[in-house]
Amino acid sequence: MIRFCLFGSGRMGDLYCEIIARNPDAELVGVINPNLPSARKLTDRYGGRAFASFDDCLKHSDVDAAIVCSPTNTHLEIIRQVAEAGKAILCEKPIDLSLERVDECIALVEQHRVPFMVGFNRRFDPTVAALRAQVADGKVGDLNMVLLTSRDPAPPPIGYIERSGGYFCDSTIHDIDLACWITGETPVEVFASGSCLVDEDIGKAGDIDTAMTTLKMPSGVLCHINNSRKAVYGFDQRIEVFGSGGMLQTLNQRDILLSHSSSEATDAKPLLKHFFLERYAASFEQEIAEFISCLASDTPTSVDQNDGKRALEIALACEQSLKEGRAIRF
Amino acid sequence: MIRFCLFGSGRMGDLYCEIIARNPDAELVGVINPNLPSARKLTDRYGGRAFASFDDCLKHSDVDAAIVCSPTNTHLEIIRQVAEAGKAILCEKPIDLSLERVDECIALVEQHRVPFMVGFNRRFDPTVAALRAQVADGKVGDLNMVLLTSRDPAPPPIGYIERSGGYFCDSTIHDIDLACWITGETPVEVFASGSCLVDEDIGKAGDIDTAMTTLKMPSGVLCHINNSRKAVYGFDQRIEVFGSGGMLQTLNQRDILLSHSSSEATDAKPLLKHFFLERYAASFEQEIAEFISCLASDTPTSVDQNDGKRALEIALACEQSLKEGRAIRF
Amino acid sequence: MIRFCLFGSGRMGDLYCEIIARNPDAELVGVINPNLPSARKLTDRYGGRAFASFDDCLKHSDVDAAIVCSPTNTHLEIIRQVAEAGKAILCEKPIDLSLERVDECIALVEQHRVPFMVGFNRRFDPTVAALRAQVADGKVGDLNMVLLTSRDPAPPPIGYIERSGGYFCDSTIHDIDLACWITGETPVEVFASGSCLVDEDIGKAGDIDTAMTTLKMPSGVLCHINNSRKAVYGFDQRIEVFGSGGMLQTLNQRDILLSHSSSEATDAKPLLKHFFLERYAASFEQEIAEFISCLASDTPTSVDQNDGKRALEIALACEQSLKEGRAIRF
Amino acid sequence: MIRFCLFGSGRMGDLYCEIIARNPDAELVGVINPNLPSARKLTDRYGGRAFASFDDCLKHSDVDAAIVCSPTNTHLEIIRQVAEAGKAILCEKPIDLSLERVDECIALVEQHRVPFMVGFNRRFDPTVAALRAQVADGKVGDLNMVLLTSRDPAPPPIGYIERSGGYFCDSTIHDIDLACWITGETPVEVFASGSCLVDEDIGKAGDIDTAMTTLKMPSGVLCHINNSRKAVYGFDQRIEVFGSGGMLQTLNQRDILLSHSSSEATDAKPLLKHFFLERYAASFEQEIAEFISCLASDTPTSVDQNDGKRALEIALACEQSLKEGRAIRF
Repeated sequence: MIRFCLFGSGRMGDLYCEIIARNPDAELVGVINPNLPSARKLTDRYGGRAFASFDDCLKHSDVDAAIVCSPTNTHLEIIRQVAEAGKAILCEKPIDLSLERVDECIALVEQHRVPFMVGFNRRFDPTVAALRAQVADGKVGDLNMVLLTSRDPAPPPIGYIERSGGYFCDSTIHDIDLACWITGETPVEVFASGSCLVDEDIGKAGDIDTAMTTLKMPSGVLCHINNSRKAVYGFDQRIEVFGSGGMLQTLNQRDILLSHSSSEATDAKPLLKHFFLERYAASFEQEIAEFISCLASDTPTSVDQNDGKRALEIALACEQSLKEGRAIRF
Repeated sequence: MIRFCLFGSGRMGDLYCEIIARNPDAELVGVINPNLPSARKLTDRYGGRAFASFDDCLKHSDVDAAIVCSPTNTHLEIIRQVAEAGKAILCEKPIDLSLERVDECIALVEQHRVPFMVGFNRRFDPTVAALRAQVADGKVGDLNMVLLTSRDPAPPPIGYIERSGGYFCDSTIHDIDLACWITGETPVEVFASGSCLVDEDIGKAGDIDTAMTTLKMPSGVLCHINNSRKAVYGFDQRIEVFGSGGMLQTLNQRDILLSHSSSEATDAKPLLKHFFLERYAASFEQEIAEFISCLASDTPTSVDQNDGKRALEIALACEQSLKEGRAIRF
Repeated sequence: MIRFCLFGSGRMGDLYCEIIARNPDAELVGVINPNLPSARKLTDRYGGRAFASFDDCLKHSDVDAAIVCSPTNTHLEIIRQVAEAGKAILCEKPIDLSLERVDECIALVEQHRVPFMVGFNRRFDPTVAALRAQVADGKVGDLNMVLLTSRDPAPPPIGYIERSGGYFCDSTIHDIDLACWITGETPVEVFASGSCLVDEDIGKAGDIDTAMTTLKMPSGVLCHINNSRKAVYGFDQRIEVFGSGGMLQTLNQRDILLSHSSSEATDAKPLLKHFFLERYAASFEQEIAEFISCLASDTPTSVDQNDGKRALEIALACEQSLKEGRAIRF
Repeated sequence: MIRFCLFGSGRMGDLYCEIIARNPDAELVGVINPNLPSARKLTDRYGGRAFASFDDCLKHSDVDAAIVCSPTNTHLEIIRQVAEAGKAILCEKPIDLSLERVDECIALVEQHRVPFMVGFNRRFDPTVAALRAQVADGKVGDLNMVLLTSRDPAPPPIGYIERSGGYFCDSTIHDIDLACWITGETPVEVFASGSCLVDEDIGKAGDIDTAMTTLKMPSGVLCHINNSRKAVYGFDQRIEVFGSGGMLQTLNQRDILLSHSSSEATDAKPLLKHFFLERYAASFEQEIAEFISCLASDTPTSVDQNDGKRALEIALACEQSLKEGRAIRF
C-alpha cells in the first residue's frame, strides 16, 4: 500500500485523486494546497485530509509519495521539500520552464536518492505502448520517419496560455518525448515553424496555436510533429512510424463506434474522444500503476527526471528556432 | 444504497460482484450457493457473506434485490423465493427454457409485484444504445432491414452446450431481443437454418454451431441473424440497420487501435476484443446502474419479464423451424 | 479478331458495343433490332451496320459470335437462330424465365455445339474474382457462411419491373450465382422472405423490393442474400465469406476517395459508385475478354448454360418459397 | 482534332502515346527521338511516324502540339524549336533544373505566344481535384495546415538518380506544386531536412532518399511534406488539409478492395496501387483532355510555365536549406 499526498487541486489533481481512490494498492492521505477549501473539494470526494503545507501533512500522516500537479512554477520548491523528506515524487510535465531550475530539481532528486517519475502519461497509453513495442520488435524494420499529430479540441483560456510557458513547452513537449522514446534517440537538429491561426488573443499573448516541428535524429531518422489548439472534430492524436519494413499507425478513438451512410455521405462516424481526460484515461491509470509498482519493488521508473529535462531542452530549442527562423543544432 | 444478494458464483456471478463492489450506490451483502466454498471465492474478493440458502441470507442481512445468475434450471425456484420475500430481481437470460415455467415466473413476479429485469445486457452497450436512439430519431428513415452478426471466439465446453438449451435459446436469443427492440416489433414469421461445422462434438450433443435466422416483422421489415461458435479473429459483433434514409452500422471493437502496413498487407489491425466480458463490459455496468436507478426511483425497468418471454418464444420457434424445415408463423 | 453481332440496343447493348469497339481483338459487325433506328444509334457511335434481322446480318457480314441482350422473352428464338448458324453466343442473364425454355436453349446449344457464355458479369469483377481465388487458396479455411448484400441505388421504372420476371429472377439471381460459384456447391434448401417497402407501385405490380434469402448447401455451409431496390447512399455491393480460418470481405467502391471530418461527423466519405455500369465496368470488359479468349483458343467458357439454368432454378424456388411461406428442398 | 508529336520515348512517352491513341480528339502524328528505333517502338504500337528531329516531323506532318518528355536537359532546346514553330507545348516536370534556363523557356513561350502546360498531373487526379474544390468550397473553413505524404514503392536505378536533379527537384516538386495550388499561396519560408536511409548508393551519388519539408505561407498556413524512395506496401500518396472547420484527407488506393481477418490480424487489405502509372492513370488522361480542350477553345491551361518555375524555385530552396541547415526565406 503506497500512501500518497498530492500537491495542487486542479483538473489533473482531481484525475489523480480519483485514480488513487480506485487503486487497491494506493491510499490518498492528503491534498496540499495553501488554498484549503480548494484542497477540501478533493478530500471530500476522494478521502484523505486537506493540508495547507507539506509540513502539516507530514505531521499528521505517513506519506510514501507525492504527486506534484500544482502550477509549474511551484514544482522546484515542492520537489525540494519532498526530496528532503525522502519521499518519492511523481511530477507533472514540464518539471519547470527553466533548464537551470530543472537541473536544480535533478540535483535534489539525485542527492536525496528519491524515486522520481515525470508525467509523460502518453507513453502508458495501451495503443502507444503497443506501437513502441512493435517498433522494437522490428515490425517496421529500420526506422525512417516518425510523424506525430496532436491537435486539441479547443484552446484553453488565455490565462492558461499566459502561464503555459509557450506552445512547445506546454503541448509539443509530449510529442517530443514520444518521438525520442519511440526512436530511442535524441535529436541533433530541431526546426520549428508556428502561426497564430486559431485565436488572435493567443497571438496577442505572445504565443502561437499552430505549429510544425522537425526533429532530425543522429541515425538520420526524421520526425515531424504538428500541433493545433483547435480541431473541431475532437482530440486528434495520431502517430505514424515508417520504416524499411512498413508502417504502423495509431488510430483515433471514439466513445461510440457507429457508422452512418445516407444520401449525403457514407461511413460517417461520431466525433473523436473529446480531450486528454477521455482519450488518455487508461494511460493515467497505467502510469500510477507503474509508479506504485516501481516503489513497491524498489526499481527505477521508466520515465524519469532526465526524460523530463531532455524534452524541455528540445521544446526550448523549438521556441528558439521559431524566433530565429533557423534550425537549432545540438 | 441498494443491498444485493447474488445467486450463483460462475463467470457471470464474478462479473456482477465486481460491478457491485465498484458501484457507490450498491452493496453486496451475500452470495448464495449451496456449494459454500464456491460462494466464498466471491465474497473473499468482493465482500459480503457466503450463504448456502436465501433463507440464511435473509436471516443475516437486509436485502433489497437479488441477482440470479445460477444455472437456468434453478431460476424458477429462486424467483419464487425472492418474489415471495418481496425483493427485486435481476435475472440472467434465459429466464427458463420452458415457456410454461417462464409463465410461472411471470405470474410470481406479477403476483408479488416485485421489480424485475432480465439480463439482456447488450441493449445497454453505449454503441448499441446509440444505434437504437438514432434509428428512433429517423437517421435511417423508415426501416427496411436489420442484420445482426454475432460470432463467438471459440465454442464453450461440451458440458456447457449440453445444458445450454440449444444454440438459439443460448445465443441467438440476444440477437432476437435486439432485433425486436430496435424495430419495436415482434415477428410474424421465423425461419432458421443451422449446421454443425465448427466442432463435431457439438453435433453429437444434438446441437448446431452455425446458424442463420430470418425474422419477418408485421410492418414487412426483414431481420437476419447469423451466429457462429467460432470466429478465429475475435468476438464479432455487428448490427446493421438499413432504411429509406440510409444505414447505420456498429463497428467491431479492439483493445489496441493500431494499423500495420507491410509488404504482405496494409491497414492490418489487431484481433477484436476477445469475448463478451471484454466487449460488453460497459453494458453490464450500465445495466446494473439502470436497475439500481429504477429501484431507487420506483420506476419499471426497461427490459422486463415480457421481453424475456418474447425472446424465448422466438428462439424456440427457431429451433422448431430448424427441425421441421419450414417457417414458423405466429 | 472476333466479329460480333449484337441483339438488342438498350443500356446493356450500348455497354457491350463500347467494350467491343475498344477491344483490339474484337470487331462489331452489326447490331440487330427490328426497330432499325434504335440499332443505328449504336452503330453510329460504335461502327458496324444496323440490321433488322439476323438473316440480314449474316447475308452482309462474317459473324463469329452474337451477344444477346434483347428482352428476355426473345432469347430462345435468337439462340435458336444463332446456334443453327453455328455461331458462338454470349447471352445476358436470365437465359429465360421458364425452366422448360431454358432447357430448349441448352438443347440447341448442345446440339449445335456452339460456345455459350451466360452474362454473370460479377464473377469477372477483379475484387470478386480475387475473393473466390483466396477462398480456393484456403485463406478462410473451411467455409461456414457466405453473406451477400446487393442493394440498388433506386428502383427501375414500373414497366421494367413488370417484365423483369420478379425480383429473385431479375436481381437475386446474380447473388445466387455468386453463392454457388464461391462455395462450389448447389443448395439443398432455399428459403426466401420478401416485402414491398420501397415503392408501393412495385407491390401493386405483384413484386417485392426488399428480400432476404437463405441457401443451405450440401456441406452445411449457410448463405444469406439481402436485396433492396433502393439504397440512398449508392450501389451497395458486399460479399463476406466466413470460415474456420477467418473472413474475407469485399469493400464498397467510390469514384472519389476523400474523407471529411467536421464538427458534425468524422471520416465521412462520398457516396458509393452509382450503379452497376459504374461499379462493374471492369467486370464487363473482363467478361468479353474471356469470351474472346475462349473462342480464340477453342476452350469452354467458365460460366455456361448450366450455370444459367442452376441460378434460375434457385431463383424460382425463392419465389415459390416466398409464396408458400416454407423452405423449398431440392 | 489535335495532332500531336512527342519528344522522348521512355516510360512517360509510352503513357502519353497510349492516352493519345485512345482519345478521339487527338492524333499521334510523330514520335521524335534521335535514336530512331526507340521512337519506332512507340509508333509501331500507337501509330504515327518516327522522326529523328522536329524539323523532319514538321516536313512530313501537320502538328498542333508537342509533348515534351525527353530528358530534362533537352527541354530548353526542344521548347525553343517548338515555340519558334508556333506549336503548343505540354512539358513534363521539371521544365529544367536551372532557374535561368527556365526563365529562357518562359521568355520563348511568351515571345512566341504558344500555349504551354507543365505536367503536374496530380492536380488532375479526380480525388485531388475534388479535395481542392472542397477546400475552395469552405469544407474545412480557414486553412491551418496541409500535410502531404508521397512515398515511392522502390528507388529508381542509380543512373536515374544521378540525372534527376536531386530528390527535391525530382519528387518533392510535385508536392510543392500541390501545396501551393491547394492553399493558393507561395511560401515565404522553406525548411528541408533529409537523410539517406533507403539505399546507400543514393547517398554515394550525393542524393537523399528520405525527406521532410516545411513550407510557411504568407497567411501563416503551415505545410509539411514527407517523401521516401521506398515504401514496401506500395505507392503511398496522401494529402491532409486541416482548417478551422475540419479536415479533408485523401485515401490511398488499391486495385483489389478485399479485407481479410484471421487469427493473425483483422481488416488486412491488399497492397496499395503499385506506382504513379497505376495510381495516377486517370490524372494523365485528364491532363491531356484539358490540354486538348484548352487548345480547342483557345483558353489558357490551368497549370503553366509560371507554376513550373515556382515549384522549381521552392525545390531548389529546399536543397539549399538541406545543405545549409537553415530556413530559406523568400
